[in-house]
Amino acid sequence: MVDMTLQCPVPFTHSETVMLAHGGGGRMMRSLIEGVIMPAFSNPALDAAHDGAVLTINGSRLAFTTDSFVVQPLFFPGGDIGTLAINGTVNDLAMCGARPLAISAGFIIEEGFSMDTLRRVISSMAAAAREAGVQIVTGDTKVVDQGKGDGLYINTAGIGVIADGVDIAPTNIRPKDAILLNGDLGRHSLAIMALREGLRFESTIESDCAPLVKPVMALLDAGIRVRCLRDLTRGGLASALVEIATAARRDLQIAEAAIPVREDVRGACEILGLDPLYTANEGRFIAFVAPEDAARALALLGAGAQQIGSVLETPGGQVTLTSVIGAARIVDMLSGEQLPRIC
Amino acid sequence: MVDMTLQCPVPFTHSETVMLAHGGGGRMMRSLIEGVIMPAFSNPALDAAHDGAVLTINGSRLAFTTDSFVVQPLFFPGGDIGTLAINGTVNDLAMCGARPLAISAGFIIEEGFSMDTLRRVISSMAAAAREAGVQIVTGDTKVVDQGKGDGLYINTAGIGVIADGVDIAPTNIRPKDAILLNGDLGRHSLAIMALREGLRFESTIESDCAPLVKPVMALLDAGIRVRCLRDLTRGGLASALVEIATAARRDLQIAEAAIPVREDVRGACEILGLDPLYTANEGRFIAFVAPEDAARALALLGAGAQQIGSVLETPGGQVTLTSVIGAARIVDMLSGEQLPRIC
Repeated sequence: MVDMTLQCPVPFTHSETVMLAHGGGGRMMRSLIEGVIMPAFSNPALDAAHDGAVLTINGSRLAFTTDSFVVQPLFFPGGDIGTLAINGTVNDLAMCGARPLAISAGFIIEEGFSMDTLRRVISSMAAAAREAGVQIVTGDTKVVDQGKGDGLYINTAGIGVIADGVDIAPTNIRPKDAILLNGDLGRHSLAIMALREGLRFESTIESDCAPLVKPVMALLDAGIRVRCLRDLTRGGLASALVEIATAARRDLQIAEAAIPVREDVRGACEILGLDPLYTANEGRFIAFVAPEDAARALALLGAGAQQIGSVLETPGGQVTLTSVIGAARIVDMLSGEQLPRIC
Repeated sequence: MVDMTLQCPVPFTHSETVMLAHGGGGRMMRSLIEGVIMPAFSNPALDAAHDGAVLTINGSRLAFTTDSFVVQPLFFPGGDIGTLAINGTVNDLAMCGARPLAISAGFIIEEGFSMDTLRRVISSMAAAAREAGVQIVTGDTKVVDQGKGDGLYINTAGIGVIADGVDIAPTNIRPKDAILLNGDLGRHSLAIMALREGLRFESTIESDCAPLVKPVMALLDAGIRVRCLRDLTRGGLASALVEIATAARRDLQIAEAAIPVREDVRGACEILGLDPLYTANEGRFIAFVAPEDAARALALLGAGAQQIGSVLETPGGQVTLTSVIGAARIVDMLSGEQLPRIC
């Protein structure tokens, strides 16, 4: 694994131009969002800084979220920009504890883009929406000049309904809560990376891209006391944990040995100098649940799910990883990014 | 004015690649949306083909809409991409008869984009949101490689609440309904065009970009029987009328003499071979209202508003324009587009 402390320091706070790393899900992106965007728009729903905003409309709690998708290449083993565009937004809603209801789709198409390729992407979106149980109800199409895009960018926004009694937020986590992970890490990033760099591994690494509505609803419907949920996209597991620890001002401890990473993914990460803790996933999430509910929650999440750690008694906001050989290290956010445009 | 029948026919139905004109708001865009996108996603809310989808959630009717903004240049007299991004979505909600509530913002930024310019755009968005009375509650930031964007693209999606008793739809228009227009046509397109082509007119033509929440709410709050609303963006007044006539299967008649176009805009249009009927606006809309309410509605809309026509007794779906010299001509949709990337 890469020791993140060895990375070059990047002057992320006072950059005069936007850099690729500002989109990487790490500390630079956070500085852009917290330094430039959020102060201008400040309001309670935005300031909650969740995966989505929670709005109360005529007594109903709705989650509302958006994501743009700029993945390159558009097609990869296990999915394409269309499946990502649906699952990414559906998953952000699920992470608010919301049942996804409606999705909007905005297309920015580069002049000259193949109509057949567009049809394939749209067909993937339709299939992903069916699987996730949402409808694409409104949309927009823009075309930009050749050389001013990269084939196709898609934005989706989504609305979901939060059931009574469900309350998901980083600030809800409590000492001793179990931290559960629903499966192995790193496959989405490595699938994209292998394709982009023309790398061949012994096996094809397929993206883990998947909708997370069913596992989340299974937990909530079973009455599991779910405190917080977060999907592990840009910035990976490490950034998600640090964000939650910081927001909740709670120390977290995780055990490296408990974190599932496939052998081929681990090998590829070592060759490429990537750390699976920081790689983006598209079908993985962590759930903070009451300790008494952990075993039942793991059974509901199925094979591949693991308890990877727990919330400590101490306030603070640090994440400590115990390595396989027993050494403890502080987990930090990614500074820039490991790999641009994976979603 | 350009006689649209003299334009070259464009093979819009069987194009193998996406062309700029597929984003122009005219017949080609319609063929892309109706031929490629809507069949794949088909559902009642989408098939209504309104400016936004209307969803019923726990008994509340919500409007949900999205738009991406790719305008070039980013800054123009009367506004910038930020004001457009807020007003565009706020206006689509207003056209559903909804009071805008929450907006999402997705940024696709080209590597190397100036951080100061980004701050200016965000500050414009914040100001426009305050003016329209909405909050920007959630967002997303992606950065793409240099040469794969055009500085900045913004997507916004919005949620609004529709009051009880409000029912806005093309199919609601009735014979004798008055067609009202809230102001002069063509300024947004001409402001962009002048800047892009380095043209100078005697006066500076400023975009009409504005939020339409207040005029629409004024009509609804006063109990005006509003049947249908439509803002006159890509494709302009002509396309909006043809779309409504087609959806409602009603013939419409409008009088050219009643359509306000500023002298400088008319002159610039003549020089550039543009037809103000087809140029995009960002603060103009048409309202179909019960004939008995027309005078009161015009008073509420204020100076500059005009009755431009009415719904005929005959079914059919044709729009007829009576010219200033008394000749009648059929108004058609734009085939391609007059001017790309004006929003």
